[in-house]
Amino acid sequence: MASVTVYGTPLSPAVSRVLACLFEKDVDFKLAPVDMAKGQHKSPDFLKLQPFGQVPAFQDELTTVFESRAICKYICNNYPEKGNQTLMGGRDGDLLAQTSVDQWLEAEGQSFNPPSSALVFQLAFAPMFGFKQDPAAIEQNEAKLANVLDVYDRRLGESKFLAGDDFTLADLAHLPNGHILVSKNEDLFMSRKNVGRWWEEISARPAWKKVVEMQNAPQG
Amino acid sequence: MASVTVYGTPLSPAVSRVLACLFEKDVDFKLAPVDMAKGQHKSPDFLKLQPFGQVPAFQDELTTVFESRAICKYICNNYPEKGNQTLMGGRDGDLLAQTSVDQWLEAEGQSFNPPSSALVFQLAFAPMFGFKQDPAAIEQNEAKLANVLDVYDRRLGESKFLAGDDFTLADLAHLPNGHILVSKNEDLFMSRKNVGRWWEEISARPAWKKVVEMQNAPQG
Repeated sequence: MASVTVYGTPLSPAVSRVLACLFEKDVDFKLAPVDMAKGQHKSPDFLKLQPFGQVPAFQDELTTVFESRAICKYICNNYPEKGNQTLMGGRDGDLLAQTSVDQWLEAEGQSFNPPSSALVFQLAFAPMFGFKQDPAAIEQNEAKLANVLDVYDRRLGESKFLAGDDFTLADLAHLPNGHILVSKNEDLFMSRKNVGRWWEEISARPAWKKVVEMQNAPQG
Repeated sequence: MASVTVYGTPLSPAVSRVLACLFEKDVDFKLAPVDMAKGQHKSPDFLKLQPFGQVPAFQDELTTVFESRAICKYICNNYPEKGNQTLMGGRDGDLLAQTSVDQWLEAEGQSFNPPSSALVFQLAFAPMFGFKQDPAAIEQNEAKLANVLDVYDRRLGESKFLAGDDFTLADLAHLPNGHILVSKNEDLFMSRKNVGRWWEEISARPAWKKVVEMQNAPQG
């Protein structure tokens, strides 16, 4: 029996970020659906796990954690001997490697995530849920994201991955929004040489392919 | 001579977050102004320190770091013996305490920071730089921030600080935007009993008062 539970659906980008980490770390888990249509995410029981009423929430035998990037760090720290050993910048607690991961993971959270999440909403979720698309918001956020990806392209001309020579949480965190955006506007990533090379490599990882399989399976 | 350099102005919220951490840790530093009016933040030399062309950037004898929260973590990790010992959740590397800091620090970055930064721009920087205020944006972001502060108020009814019993980076990260917002709309924080108690305590810390003194001094 898996002692690790992730609350949410793999269709949520933030949930799928945690699932990608669990597959990388080869940590067994079960997925507990949260019926947002019925308001389950605002129920008192769920708010004890996730006070903002959002997915994902994470629970194992030791604790509960929310916020997807904090959950990923916890998984790496609490299961150091399992699966991928370099997601946090190496097994030996090398401070500079870990700082580079922190730095590029925060760049993802603060610079890549806002425009890419806005675009994911406009290009994927708005049509899916019957909201009207906002062309001005699409144009504005594509321009913001293009600036971020230009910085990434220069960085990825100097190093194989964002934080250095290893695939780390800083790369992994881009997979959920990147996957949706590439399916809607491939050029945004693939027209940039180094970003394109990086994207091909990180999106082909077996751990991420398992997440995509979960997303494509009929949702319970 | 200080071997630590912070690039930017204390008037920038992200810079002042790093300064608050340095004062808490009792780490000497010098401040290197970046003349954004002259485009110095987009110069090739500065982009080597901060590839997005933003402030702050941080440099010490060991490395350079960007992104304010990643810089704060680095300062705690690289100067463990100096100043405040519990900013990262305790000195002994307690995983659960550290995870709680990560979790609430990400909540600050993802939930508190977007609406509070938008409000700081509208209420403080727009009038200062001659931009027109957008009443719809003010209303929308005040409502978003109120929801976040409601969650904080419940949390701060259970624990003294956001991550637990100690003042940590998770609290510290709120000081820059909080300071400006309380000066413009005190009720947003002070009308909530536990948030008000927390704000009085964290904003009275000597380290933060030193940052405010730097902000109030004539800027070079």
